[in-house]
Amino acid sequence: MVPTLHAIIPAGGAGSRLWPLSRKARPKFLLDPLDHGKTLLQETFDRLKDVSLTITVVTGKDHYEEVCRQLPELTGESDEAFPGEILIEPSPRDSMAAIGLATYIIRERYGDLAVVGSFAADHVIVDVDAFHQAVRTAGIGASAGLLTTLGIVPTEPSTAFGYIEPGTPAIAPGLYPARRFVEKPDLATAATYNRDGYLWNAGMFIAQTGTICAALSQKLPAMDTQLSAIAKRYMTSLIRDGEAAPINPAHWDRLTKIAIDYALAEPMAEEGKVAVVPAQETMGWSDVGDFQAVHRLKDPSQANLVLSADRAKQVRVIGLEGVAVVDSDDALLIVPLARSQEVKQVVDQIAESGDVELL
Amino acid sequence: MVPTLHAIIPAGGAGSRLWPLSRKARPKFLLDPLDHGKTLLQETFDRLKDVSLTITVVTGKDHYEEVCRQLPELTGESDEAFPGEILIEPSPRDSMAAIGLATYIIRERYGDLAVVGSFAADHVIVDVDAFHQAVRTAGIGASAGLLTTLGIVPTEPSTAFGYIEPGTPAIAPGLYPARRFVEKPDLATAATYNRDGYLWNAGMFIAQTGTICAALSQKLPAMDTQLSAIAKRYMTSLIRDGEAAPINPAHWDRLTKIAIDYALAEPMAEEGKVAVVPAQETMGWSDVGDFQAVHRLKDPSQANLVLSADRAKQVRVIGLEGVAVVDSDDALLIVPLARSQEVKQVVDQIAESGDVELL
Repeated sequence: MVPTLHAIIPAGGAGSRLWPLSRKARPKFLLDPLDHGKTLLQETFDRLKDVSLTITVVTGKDHYEEVCRQLPELTGESDEAFPGEILIEPSPRDSMAAIGLATYIIRERYGDLAVVGSFAADHVIVDVDAFHQAVRTAGIGASAGLLTTLGIVPTEPSTAFGYIEPGTPAIAPGLYPARRFVEKPDLATAATYNRDGYLWNAGMFIAQTGTICAALSQKLPAMDTQLSAIAKRYMTSLIRDGEAAPINPAHWDRLTKIAIDYALAEPMAEEGKVAVVPAQETMGWSDVGDFQAVHRLKDPSQANLVLSADRAKQVRVIGLEGVAVVDSDDALLIVPLARSQEVKQVVDQIAESGDVELL
Repeated sequence: MVPTLHAIIPAGGAGSRLWPLSRKARPKFLLDPLDHGKTLLQETFDRLKDVSLTITVVTGKDHYEEVCRQLPELTGESDEAFPGEILIEPSPRDSMAAIGLATYIIRERYGDLAVVGSFAADHVIVDVDAFHQAVRTAGIGASAGLLTTLGIVPTEPSTAFGYIEPGTPAIAPGLYPARRFVEKPDLATAATYNRDGYLWNAGMFIAQTGTICAALSQKLPAMDTQLSAIAKRYMTSLIRDGEAAPINPAHWDRLTKIAIDYALAEPMAEEGKVAVVPAQETMGWSDVGDFQAVHRLKDPSQANLVLSADRAKQVRVIGLEGVAVVDSDDALLIVPLARSQEVKQVVDQIAESGDVELL
């Protein structure tokens, strides 16, 4: 157990490489692309319950209603209530703002020593026990004042993820210093990273609120001041009115748009203040980033990946292998699984052509 | 002009190799797979108007209403009425019954010397003038008491069509004796047929009613008697009541189920009573038999053939060439154009599985 973990789930991002399954109006985290019977958000929530004291979801106003519907345990609509809340960010301002919002509010509620952990809403993890173990190990790093991340032992060279270079000696069993974070590499560089034992950066960060706030106040002092004020205003209205006032967009829009990786992880790694827990391949982590990933996770023995929004629809594929067929009511995509990454370009083209209702 | 031509359009057959575009409920002839702005039936009708005195369509009761809707000139619903009628066959009993029904009724109306010509409802012809010229030449053969057929000069060896062996000398310019009809060959045999100048049997037959009825009375006397009785009853009710009584299914079901090729063309060719008009490739005849044919006719410069029942639907194909993507509201098919013939097997599988609403 990591008894003081306050989980944060930033629920944003469209997952445009899963178009036309994922759309602006129904992004990847609200979907169940693997037919698990639960959406990726619901799975993320359930996976965190056993290791968390509270769970805070941060989402946009467009998805707030559906997030509430999918997580009745957070809204009081379910008999099995779970402590936590759903925060609405007035507009998307990248991960530092979203995670910061939750972190600063949790600090207001639970103090500087409370451990927060941020986990994407749209990833899958097959072995939940292994995940819980990794989170517990990360809790040790967090309690020692380190920004602690879960790094994934790579299954192949990948250009889709940034990498983390772990150092030695181990800080504790399964916990290593993180020497540096590197950007998404080209394939040749990725191969050298794999050989040298680098880990995929899966964007999972665990730390004490005090660690995060102190680092932010040092590196982006304006952002620290602004988030601190937003959190205080939030708590004040909540205590005074029994209900928190919506975050003022004028305040929110002043926040720097920056990823937590650049804002904190990279500079803190240089200062020796970041730890990493290598999570083995057997944990079965995936960001479900494209249709090739969906095919591998769903049923790799099938010649093709067929996804249809209308489950009653008859889909027949003759004489093709390794192809994704993705059908929705207003759009149909066919792409070789090996070229799944190109789906993003199709979405970009559609955005340029102005067909906004198709995005 | 062939002033006495009475055109017959047997409008039956599902066109199962165009599934899921063509369905039992909306067979190929009721569709516009080439985006011509008219259905194949409407194009067939329009193509025949200039060379016909009357046009008779024979169809099943399931499609009668839609045929009427598509051909208002035959129902009196249009200002531009064209003489002719739409006959309902109580059940499908192959082409001899359907063509025979119309032929025997036309004989009742116009006598033994009236020339009938039968033309499938779901073929396309690009050069209509060349078609008219071929029909006029066929009229010469018909007037001479011959069963006259249009034979298509093949563009390639084909296993999809029967062949006609033409003889010499010419009966008249462009009109040759037909020595024999042969079944759909294998590819090697088809190549020898092409080399030897054989023609595709496109199922277009032109003859005097008297020629057809006399031949049928000799070869299938019961069928002649039955069709004769059905036609007389039809005309009697029409004259007596101003409206023809529906054909009695009990009478209809006694008719032999046989194609006109076997019933008349093959045996009459052996007797030297069949002529053929070779129609050049430039006439642009096609039976639109599969998606490869649709692709060639529609826009062969396109990498893939994309057909969507919902024209507003966005269909994107990445990284594939020579594939047909055919989308309807309840079924989606993807097949390499070169394997278009296999679509029939998919339809057969669906029929076996009992998903009748998908047929």
